[in-house]
Amino acid sequence: MASMAAVLSKTPFLSQPLTKSPNSDALPFAAVSFPSLRRRGGGGRVAIRAGLIAPDGGKLIELVVEESRRREKKHEAAELPRVVLTAIDLQWMHVLSEGWASPLGGFMRESEFLQTLHFNSLRLDDGSVVNMSVPIVLAIDDEQKALIGESKRVALVDSDGNPLAILNDIEIYKHPKEERIARTWGTTAPGLPYVEEAITNAGNWLIGGDLEVLEPVKYNDGLDRFRLSPAELRKELEKRGADAVFAFQLRNPVHNGHALLMTDTRKRLLEMGYKNPILLLHPLGGYTKADDVPLSWRMKQHEKVLEDGVLDPETTVVSIFPSPMHYAGPTEVQWHAKARINAGANFYIVGRDPAGMGHPVEKRDLYDADHGKKVLSMAPGLERLNILPFRVAAYDKTQGKMAFFDPSRPQDFLFISGTKMRTLAKNNENPPDGFMCPSGWKVLVDYYESLTPAGNGRLPEPVSA
Amino acid sequence: MASMAAVLSKTPFLSQPLTKSPNSDALPFAAVSFPSLRRRGGGGRVAIRAGLIAPDGGKLIELVVEESRRREKKHEAAELPRVVLTAIDLQWMHVLSEGWASPLGGFMRESEFLQTLHFNSLRLDDGSVVNMSVPIVLAIDDEQKALIGESKRVALVDSDGNPLAILNDIEIYKHPKEERIARTWGTTAPGLPYVEEAITNAGNWLIGGDLEVLEPVKYNDGLDRFRLSPAELRKELEKRGADAVFAFQLRNPVHNGHALLMTDTRKRLLEMGYKNPILLLHPLGGYTKADDVPLSWRMKQHEKVLEDGVLDPETTVVSIFPSPMHYAGPTEVQWHAKARINAGANFYIVGRDPAGMGHPVEKRDLYDADHGKKVLSMAPGLERLNILPFRVAAYDKTQGKMAFFDPSRPQDFLFISGTKMRTLAKNNENPPDGFMCPSGWKVLVDYYESLTPAGNGRLPEPVSA
Repeated sequence: MASMAAVLSKTPFLSQPLTKSPNSDALPFAAVSFPSLRRRGGGGRVAIRAGLIAPDGGKLIELVVEESRRREKKHEAAELPRVVLTAIDLQWMHVLSEGWASPLGGFMRESEFLQTLHFNSLRLDDGSVVNMSVPIVLAIDDEQKALIGESKRVALVDSDGNPLAILNDIEIYKHPKEERIARTWGTTAPGLPYVEEAITNAGNWLIGGDLEVLEPVKYNDGLDRFRLSPAELRKELEKRGADAVFAFQLRNPVHNGHALLMTDTRKRLLEMGYKNPILLLHPLGGYTKADDVPLSWRMKQHEKVLEDGVLDPETTVVSIFPSPMHYAGPTEVQWHAKARINAGANFYIVGRDPAGMGHPVEKRDLYDADHGKKVLSMAPGLERLNILPFRVAAYDKTQGKMAFFDPSRPQDFLFISGTKMRTLAKNNENPPDGFMCPSGWKVLVDYYESLTPAGNGRLPEPVSA
Repeated sequence: MASMAAVLSKTPFLSQPLTKSPNSDALPFAAVSFPSLRRRGGGGRVAIRAGLIAPDGGKLIELVVEESRRREKKHEAAELPRVVLTAIDLQWMHVLSEGWASPLGGFMRESEFLQTLHFNSLRLDDGSVVNMSVPIVLAIDDEQKALIGESKRVALVDSDGNPLAILNDIEIYKHPKEERIARTWGTTAPGLPYVEEAITNAGNWLIGGDLEVLEPVKYNDGLDRFRLSPAELRKELEKRGADAVFAFQLRNPVHNGHALLMTDTRKRLLEMGYKNPILLLHPLGGYTKADDVPLSWRMKQHEKVLEDGVLDPETTVVSIFPSPMHYAGPTEVQWHAKARINAGANFYIVGRDPAGMGHPVEKRDLYDADHGKKVLSMAPGLERLNILPFRVAAYDKTQGKMAFFDPSRPQDFLFISGTKMRTLAKNNENPPDGFMCPSGWKVLVDYYESLTPAGNGRLPEPVSA
């Protein structure tokens, strides 16, 4: 087994020889394109096909200008009215540029925005439907709108004024904030993190159009090597000869319950007749709320967990999903699933209350814990994706490790919530043995130690590792 | 031309001989069922087919127990736990019983409720999609839930305890009021009429199941003869040999601008190559907010307008649509359109801000005036319906009548809003000649005279005519 640290660097994704994997001798998929052969798996109900699942709309839409034309495009951008992007706008530009939202070709125009709000899906010209549950929009204010005037193109620039992209054939339309929030979150209660961060103070107009991004998006935070685009992931998955790809979205530290679940999923896929199921372990890398553990610390923690040997690096690809987080529960989980189709995943693991959080005002969860998986299983445009609902894992006191909950002996199990886990780590206490590997736990303890409590008792903004 | 009063009675719908209509000699459609022959109309872009558009799901779902089994079902109902229906619940039961919501077979179970909230549509077992934008649900409280206990069936009863229906194979699930309101209305602002009337004080549970209605629903208000079911409307439309049916939803008095629009639509359909387009003039008959003109007065007003000869009774069917009103704009207009497909309409006229109202708290309209027609044109499950956007009609001072607005001479036109119209009628003032026929206007004036202003300056609840 390769060193676990190496799993987190980009190189071994590409150099892992197929012959080392016990399951990789089945079919020479690497160069096979989709969709061709279909056959039934041994005992399974799922059609097994050669090659990866096709991207939404049939073709991955990448929006980065090819290298030979970048100079010319930069000159063009310099002449255009400018829209300054926020950090979250830039993350969405990144998402769009790599085709996570394929077939979307840029920030949404009004017809796409309305379809997203009302139907969580887009109808394409050929009449087919793709899922699209979260508005990917760019807000501007009255002043910016006036500056754009009659121009049909604008340059998107960073906070220093450097041009990053051109938005072509633009459409400016009203930003109905209240309606957007109500239809996306199912509440307008004050205190929704994304709303406060990105909507409340945003402009009253939205600008949509066709996007041309001038350079691949990089953050220069030491983690860019983990940010594989859908095309890069597909290449890697094909190289590995994946005949099933199961995606695991996470924005929290990984504990052994997660690991058990991922290992068990692979076992189930093998039983279904797949020969080489590959796990896409896919932590979310964009905006998260202040009390979530920041990406850099999570990546450190994932690294330690992987070093501990719980997951097989030969059948696991670790990469960062660049999207910002909405915390919009059943609406958002569709986006999380749809984006992974574009990266080649045809199985999606969904747990209790995905993308959920506590109600910002009332003492209850914002969403019904089961609605996420139900909505996901019924969502238009996701019919091709196989939804794998979570089995509940908890700490089995009789075994001293995480195990699937056995309802016949509930007294033997301990449920350790995310809040409980964070409280333990904050207080430098240890969870029960077998909950998380000690080196992974230490990362969490180190993270909370790095935060100096402010005088008002509130934690300050997390600092990057 | 037949007497206009007769147009409003049920008889002439059935006895109007085809040979009297100048357009009815084209094709002997009356006994033709859908869908068969398809051909292109002369100058149009729309496929013309013999027979009426098929109901959603292919078959009209009627839920009234057949006469021979009613006694037995009533005995069964007497033994079951009871759920007392409100007036609005009963209107929805009526809607379901006649198949306006086909293929829905009863109050929604959770999977249908969630699909409605998130996707405004339902996926059927065969993979096809029908539109369903408004939740048709039945709320119960904790006490009623406890009374139902483990029973798999309940009786639905009126406020006197008379059994009206049986709900079979029931499913009880949480009523997420805030989320329902936010996703249906795009706001949770206090003061939404339907919300205050039917949701705020409703129970915290919803009960879904398969509905068996014991008797056809009647209101005994003198208007039942206008309440044609989708099956009755289809029969009438086939008898008339309609090769296009264009529905006009309204909940307000008809003025000459509406009449112009309906007449003009018929002309356009004839130009497209249809031989016998029939207008379904379809006032909404269920719950409306307190300051709308009540149904009985609207029907009187419609009668006078028709007597005035603006619309041809031979090509017009007047009937009452039994649905309650949500005032949910772009979400609700889909329901209004979808229900009319089930009644045989393949064209739907949509105007400015359909099913809209003022924002209950802010000084603006709740919905963008153009969103309704845009959303309607993109709505899943409505692809078969031809959407006819309104042309704006206004009072042309140079002609002394309602005419299509001519943007080249805006100074010649007077826009008379609904609020303006109501204010004039309340004050017993006259609108400009040609806005509405004098006899129709008098009905409105009479209505407002019938309301005795209460001491607090607010109008009391409208009384029935």
